[in-house]
Amino acid sequence: MDLFGRDLITTQEWSLEELRAVLDLAARMKRERFSPKFTSLLANKTFFMFFYNPSVRTRQSFECAATELGGHAQFLEPKAMRLKTATSAGETVEDAARVMARYAAGLGIRILEDRVGYYGEGDELLREYARWGDFPVISMAHDKYHPCQGLADVMGWAEWFGKGPGKGLDVSVLEGKKLLISWGHGALARSWCSVQEAMLIGSRFGMDVTVASPEGYDLDPQVIEWARENCKANQANFAITHDVKAGYRGAHVVYSRHWMSPQAYRDGEFLKQAEIDRALKYPEWICDTEKMKLTDNAIFTHPMPIDRGHEVTDEVASGPRSCIYDVAENRLHVQKAIMALTMGNL
Amino acid sequence: MDLFGRDLITTQEWSLEELRAVLDLAARMKRERFSPKFTSLLANKTFFMFFYNPSVRTRQSFECAATELGGHAQFLEPKAMRLKTATSAGETVEDAARVMARYAAGLGIRILEDRVGYYGEGDELLREYARWGDFPVISMAHDKYHPCQGLADVMGWAEWFGKGPGKGLDVSVLEGKKLLISWGHGALARSWCSVQEAMLIGSRFGMDVTVASPEGYDLDPQVIEWARENCKANQANFAITHDVKAGYRGAHVVYSRHWMSPQAYRDGEFLKQAEIDRALKYPEWICDTEKMKLTDNAIFTHPMPIDRGHEVTDEVASGPRSCIYDVAENRLHVQKAIMALTMGNL
Amino acid sequence: MDLFGRDLITTQEWSLEELRAVLDLAARMKRERFSPKFTSLLANKTFFMFFYNPSVRTRQSFECAATELGGHAQFLEPKAMRLKTATSAGETVEDAARVMARYAAGLGIRILEDRVGYYGEGDELLREYARWGDFPVISMAHDKYHPCQGLADVMGWAEWFGKGPGKGLDVSVLEGKKLLISWGHGALARSWCSVQEAMLIGSRFGMDVTVASPEGYDLDPQVIEWARENCKANQANFAITHDVKAGYRGAHVVYSRHWMSPQAYRDGEFLKQAEIDRALKYPEWICDTEKMKLTDNAIFTHPMPIDRGHEVTDEVASGPRSCIYDVAENRLHVQKAIMALTMGNL
Repeated sequence: MDLFGRDLITTQEWSLEELRAVLDLAARMKRERFSPKFTSLLANKTFFMFFYNPSVRTRQSFECAATELGGHAQFLEPKAMRLKTATSAGETVEDAARVMARYAAGLGIRILEDRVGYYGEGDELLREYARWGDFPVISMAHDKYHPCQGLADVMGWAEWFGKGPGKGLDVSVLEGKKLLISWGHGALARSWCSVQEAMLIGSRFGMDVTVASPEGYDLDPQVIEWARENCKANQANFAITHDVKAGYRGAHVVYSRHWMSPQAYRDGEFLKQAEIDRALKYPEWICDTEKMKLTDNAIFTHPMPIDRGHEVTDEVASGPRSCIYDVAENRLHVQKAIMALTMGNL
Repeated sequence: MDLFGRDLITTQEWSLEELRAVLDLAARMKRERFSPKFTSLLANKTFFMFFYNPSVRTRQSFECAATELGGHAQFLEPKAMRLKTATSAGETVEDAARVMARYAAGLGIRILEDRVGYYGEGDELLREYARWGDFPVISMAHDKYHPCQGLADVMGWAEWFGKGPGKGLDVSVLEGKKLLISWGHGALARSWCSVQEAMLIGSRFGMDVTVASPEGYDLDPQVIEWARENCKANQANFAITHDVKAGYRGAHVVYSRHWMSPQAYRDGEFLKQAEIDRALKYPEWICDTEKMKLTDNAIFTHPMPIDRGHEVTDEVASGPRSCIYDVAENRLHVQKAIMALTMGNL
Repeated sequence: MDLFGRDLITTQEWSLEELRAVLDLAARMKRERFSPKFTSLLANKTFFMFFYNPSVRTRQSFECAATELGGHAQFLEPKAMRLKTATSAGETVEDAARVMARYAAGLGIRILEDRVGYYGEGDELLREYARWGDFPVISMAHDKYHPCQGLADVMGWAEWFGKGPGKGLDVSVLEGKKLLISWGHGALARSWCSVQEAMLIGSRFGMDVTVASPEGYDLDPQVIEWARENCKANQANFAITHDVKAGYRGAHVVYSRHWMSPQAYRDGEFLKQAEIDRALKYPEWICDTEKMKLTDNAIFTHPMPIDRGHEVTDEVASGPRSCIYDVAENRLHVQKAIMALTMGNL
């Protein structure tokens, strides 16, 4: 297996064997964080980070990842770039990407709802950069997918259900576990990328998946279809419910997070306030101790930042079965592994 | 003595022995700037810098410091973070700090008057990050204190009164020297942090301290009280005067800098223009050659940037007894020492 | 020859021998990009980058250059600096530069038309920093010159006319070649710096130079005079024409790019929209296949980003004789060589 040069737009496009290779390396990198085995893998090399949307955590974890591998991540805000559009003069993506690939070992892009005119336009931009740039393009969260978060999620869940540190990471412990992805009410009008990636990668690794939300919060039909197929291939269950409690029964992993409705765009605009107003009408959609009691002693997971009091109560988020900080930490290790495998001197 | 993991909010909270350890290491790092003894102390490690207020010099010196120790300082502008407040959804400091401590070796924070609603709120924020983040939190100047500036100040003064390069840094030469901290008129409405830190650390190292200002420019009563106690413990003098010339008599170090009045806030707002208008009414409060003649051949010091023509004349600031560039340079060495001792592989 | 500490404001101020030393080292650095011979030349050292104007490419290539040499380039936006002006309080360039030179190995500055009040003011600012800062000041493009682009240009052209990789870079192949610098119509109101630097350095290396533009687009008379003298010293031809096709005849290198007219400033303001309106009236000033047929099988060059469809057609810009990506890549190698020679531990 050779992952050098591979783009990572969604985990769905990588084989299970390739995803396992990332997770195995990430686990070793976590155990021996500053070992000389790893600290020169990106020596003197550059990873470009294009933040169409700002983000503190994603930037922190990617920039730390490059530093820990001996390289450097450049924080770039593409607003300084004049890209050619239908109505304004500027540079083509072809020209931009072909030059960047002469300078850098790889390119990360983050582009969310409010910087695109319709769902999927961010995904198209990533693929356009990947087409022209002769280097790996890595999603740092875009409108459709968030592969690094998905990998950090399953790594964290497998750690919690596994045999503990020193025993290695065994993702097979997730097989047959039930993942509930529950919509949470909230005031932030959030992207589909994290929850969609979670249902894709969870179902790849043999989990039963239930998606719960009020009516009117359907996710991307293509992603739902893939998740259903992933489950089927593993003889696992896939279900959708609009009951706020049903999905909790027997769950092993509860993922409660807000996401916007499919009506979030109109006329090329992202209608954030309308989404927030709509979401706040469902106060019962919060993950709390009462609902968690219905589960099979589930762990609570969330990609952070958490909207406490809306998506989940403090009692659950800070409780003894919350894996949120471990999952957040895993972003670093997973991203180091991805960079090492796709760009490094392995 | 083990300083690993220690927060640095103000030098007043560190023992004299600990401050001497910083200064000794800083002096060695200045002498042998790129020695391999020092260039891997932060290898592959990250220092987060949170600039609620922009600053060129502080950023330059901290980012250089990390680079010279083999690590990397990430420049972060927290405006990209959605922190939870009384009125808006967002992340708690607990969540932010606990995740950041999984990524980075330490966190620096700069937050001044115009980003807080009352004097002391910046200090509270630093202590909140320090409470939750399992890594050292270092002040890069906040509304109350500026410990790195204070350490650079005494290092510079001790160099000027010492035996010269090659003889080592001997801070005991400051004992019995008289430090005048004089208010300067000016057009910038400046923070209390630098002058307060200077009076605290100067008094710790055995200096006599005089604070001079027009009426109506009192500093933090708690800091004044600590400075008075520090002097008393050393059998040194502490004095406050409203006479523009009296403090110069017999001074060895003259520190002339504007600071705002205690009326600078009203209703949670920082009234910058009112402060500037008020300050410009005192043109006689400028450090000039005539006043410097009253001193005991004093050196002139200032944390920079200087408001020349208001706080001090060009003749004094660029004169043969000005230590401003040496003090500014010492920011680098002092910060390297602090990072090495609190975060490094020493 | 010792280039340590040398400023680089324009190649015209460096000797031919010095420019050849840069190009030779750049060619070796391109051949052996990550060789340990080069990866510690800036170890633990800092290069400050002052972007008065934003730029993605220049930042990318300089920051990569520092990383590949083992150092770090700090991205600084001087808007965070309060510099003293005729009307506002702030720091003098003397104070700023003298302190920066205590921290960093060198300083790059980018300042273009829209950040200055008259042509040449940016050049004056660079020289003011160079005067006070005891470190090399490197232009990263300013209103008059763009020396790094000029060096990347001739390196690229010499590669295309040379014997290919593995044979070394031989700039003497440029002697007697004809360089056409043609104005292109367009919608971006561009600086004189790149084309002026190209005509200076091209003429230094023995090329015939023709400058073509509509009437009313004269460049800096001093630069024209120098280019004319450079040509004369090499028994080469220098010509100016207002005919859109004449210059193409017999050309070996065609450089088609928009530049603003000398009327671009009025009352200290940069009149961007007026320039764009004026430029769009000359649609025949585009480099296309028809005009390229008049040349002696010329290569097409451009400093990028290209305004395709205005300055040049896609057919030419993406054609088999376009050297644009090679020239863009050379920015990296040339800048590594400049940094190594002026700031490095060679």
